[in-house]
Amino acid sequence: MANTLEEIIENRKALSQTRVTKAIFPDRTNHHDTLFGGTALQWMDEVSFIAATRFSRQNIVTVSSDKIDFKHPVPAGSVVELIADVIEVGRTSIKVRVDMYVEDMYKDGCEKAITGNFSFVAIDENRKPTSVLPKDFLDLQDYEH
Amino acid sequence: MANTLEEIIENRKALSQTRVTKAIFPDRTNHHDTLFGGTALQWMDEVSFIAATRFSRQNIVTVSSDKIDFKHPVPAGSVVELIADVIEVGRTSIKVRVDMYVEDMYKDGCEKAITGNFSFVAIDENRKPTSVLPKDFLDLQDYEH
Amino acid sequence: MANTLEEIIENRKALSQTRVTKAIFPDRTNHHDTLFGGTALQWMDEVSFIAATRFSRQNIVTVSSDKIDFKHPVPAGSVVELIADVIEVGRTSIKVRVDMYVEDMYKDGCEKAITGNFSFVAIDENRKPTSVLPKDFLDLQDYEH
Amino acid sequence: MANTLEEIIENRKALSQTRVTKAIFPDRTNHHDTLFGGTALQWMDEVSFIAATRFSRQNIVTVSSDKIDFKHPVPAGSVVELIADVIEVGRTSIKVRVDMYVEDMYKDGCEKAITGNFSFVAIDENRKPTSVLPKDFLDLQDYEH
Amino acid sequence: MANTLEEIIENRKALSQTRVTKAIFPDRTNHHDTLFGGTALQWMDEVSFIAATRFSRQNIVTVSSDKIDFKHPVPAGSVVELIADVIEVGRTSIKVRVDMYVEDMYKDGCEKAITGNFSFVAIDENRKPTSVLPKDFLDLQDYEH
Amino acid sequence: MANTLEEIIENRKALSQTRVTKAIFPDRTNHHDTLFGGTALQWMDEVSFIAATRFSRQNIVTVSSDKIDFKHPVPAGSVVELIADVIEVGRTSIKVRVDMYVEDMYKDGCEKAITGNFSFVAIDENRKPTSVLPKDFLDLQDYEH
Repeated sequence: MANTLEEIIENRKALSQTRVTKAIFPDRTNHHDTLFGGTALQWMDEVSFIAATRFSRQNIVTVSSDKIDFKHPVPAGSVVELIADVIEVGRTSIKVRVDMYVEDMYKDGCEKAITGNFSFVAIDENRKPTSVLPKDFLDLQDYEH
Repeated sequence: MANTLEEIIENRKALSQTRVTKAIFPDRTNHHDTLFGGTALQWMDEVSFIAATRFSRQNIVTVSSDKIDFKHPVPAGSVVELIADVIEVGRTSIKVRVDMYVEDMYKDGCEKAITGNFSFVAIDENRKPTSVLPKDFLDLQDYEH
Repeated sequence: MANTLEEIIENRKALSQTRVTKAIFPDRTNHHDTLFGGTALQWMDEVSFIAATRFSRQNIVTVSSDKIDFKHPVPAGSVVELIADVIEVGRTSIKVRVDMYVEDMYKDGCEKAITGNFSFVAIDENRKPTSVLPKDFLDLQDYEH
Repeated sequence: MANTLEEIIENRKALSQTRVTKAIFPDRTNHHDTLFGGTALQWMDEVSFIAATRFSRQNIVTVSSDKIDFKHPVPAGSVVELIADVIEVGRTSIKVRVDMYVEDMYKDGCEKAITGNFSFVAIDENRKPTSVLPKDFLDLQDYEH
Repeated sequence: MANTLEEIIENRKALSQTRVTKAIFPDRTNHHDTLFGGTALQWMDEVSFIAATRFSRQNIVTVSSDKIDFKHPVPAGSVVELIADVIEVGRTSIKVRVDMYVEDMYKDGCEKAITGNFSFVAIDENRKPTSVLPKDFLDLQDYEH
Repeated sequence: MANTLEEIIENRKALSQTRVTKAIFPDRTNHHDTLFGGTALQWMDEVSFIAATRFSRQNIVTVSSDKIDFKHPVPAGSVVELIADVIEVGRTSIKVRVDMYVEDMYKDGCEKAITGNFSFVAIDENRKPTSVLPKDFLDLQDYEH
């Protein structure tokens, strides 16, 4: 009750967190038996797209990916977990950070392998940028004044 | 410290929880624009397989799926989240429950659409059933007496 | 001529039998070189869906899969044949049994590896359950009285 | 008993017949909503490969496809059934004919849409052509003299 | 300026050339570690379809593939390049030749592995054959008289 | 003859250029009927990987992707051509620029839609960075002194 817009946004960021877990079977690896960089990028885009959609509940399109380092090869026989968090909210844009953790199928413990930021904009039915805040929240904002 | 095996198993169950979130794009639906039942089954098997693997850290194979009801059609334009929890631990077998929740891309809120149980066994290098408990825990068990 | 509805249904069941044969190449197996349980479930749903469609010639959706045992691992280098038969016909629902047979690519002979039952309902344009019998047969039924 | 090699080959041809049935969902069609020619070719190669393997129980590789006409477009919402029959048996090669039948999901009846011949050779562990007859039959042949 | 239709067609053929390069990773090969014949056919149809579309800028459908020989197995660990050229232009049909070259990932040099011809027709909105020449060129043709 | 290493590298860069052309069919687009950003990233990684491999003829792994802007949505019904060029050669690393051009299936002309740089390193059998120059060129380098 009587939450500020800022509090609502923080709460909404928390609720938008999205997780995807995958087993790296041989058909997802190249002939060095490690995950393709391009496959990791595709997965990171997909999980961050869902996080942005959950935050905004609008039509969302990818506008850019920041520099991404693939420091640790991800071997076949791993489990990876991608965790996407909304980290910045502009008027029409959202930035999402994705951390990809790798764990051995047969050992406890995991380590962060890749981190990347993806930026999205909300678009309306004419494909023009529109507010990333769900309509209800814009209505709410009126009430706050 | 001084944890009973039972406590350790409960803790291990909690840590094994596995989440997979997916956007239902048109290429994942049939010509009624709803998710294929068989695709849902494949996803449920994969997420429960990872949960069982995380619990056991052994080689794991699916042995059965219980009766599964597809009560709610899942339309294109949804986001689904599958959550897998280890619910029963036998000597060589693990039962995992998977709940699949559906949310509209453009509205807050979600509802449970499908629940299913999958059973797995741990197998050794000769493909014989073996204890589902990680080796460390079996060693621990000796110490507890 | 002068066939009873029952005879027609039996005849229709026979004509609905659907077969799908697949070679199990490495990209369809996990790292134990055996077919994923979830992939088998997806294939079983697809072949039984076609059998139900052939019987009914209506819109058909999966409503449930019965308990399914994966007793025999299916190794890479096998050929599998799925055979789907309509086994029960209700007013708006159809039950289909799928048997999956496995044969070695390099040896004659095959054995049954998995059996599963899938239930379907026929739905009309409003997604409401409707008679699984093709319209012609309902007309016929009127004539039989 | 006392079957000639010719009888055995005829019997073996009959047992090698392979069927694959598929529902043509939108993701398998181009933007004219008809099946890709190239997808049909891939399916025809796969089903004829299995028929050749079942006949020979040796390592089999595709050596050629004959001229193939795509006279009838296959629309989304069809069921297709591919039936592969071994039609010629040489010393190291096999020719397989594949007929692809199309049926409307919502109407009884089907018609032949595509016919194609694929040729295969059996190869040994050094990738050299070898007899397409299973070893047992070659042994048998010795007995017949 | 003042180009004949023939010159324009020759120019258009040259501009339609289409190249697709692919790395043959293990998931694209069979258990002999060579590319599936059917996968090669699918790729050849796709690249020749694009060349025909670029020539015609109309709706294009595959009508036939000529006899194709798979003389050289394509091993995993290769790079293949498919080059499609429009070689014949009829009133409503186009013939495209596809050459598939294979190179070792770890050695310079390549050799031709497969050649195939695919025929296409241009179709109008009623799925009737129509001129393969872009509308502008038909207008041009009027001016030439 | 008597080419400097620099000339050879320039020549090698030119020969490494790699092209991939794709038709954007509906199954490769999201529900706004535009290509997924993540799919574009995966394609860009694959084509630049092949260019780097052709330059080096060594084992190559992706180490990073630079910031990439997706300024122009790529609609279903487009043809895209990705062109990868080696632009920088270090001792153990290679930078490849990928330009993705979009053309309408039914109109002549194309425009650049996305540009991205991907960095790779050559690795030896122990997964340690190694010279990106093919062995022959290193031998050659000795001769030049």
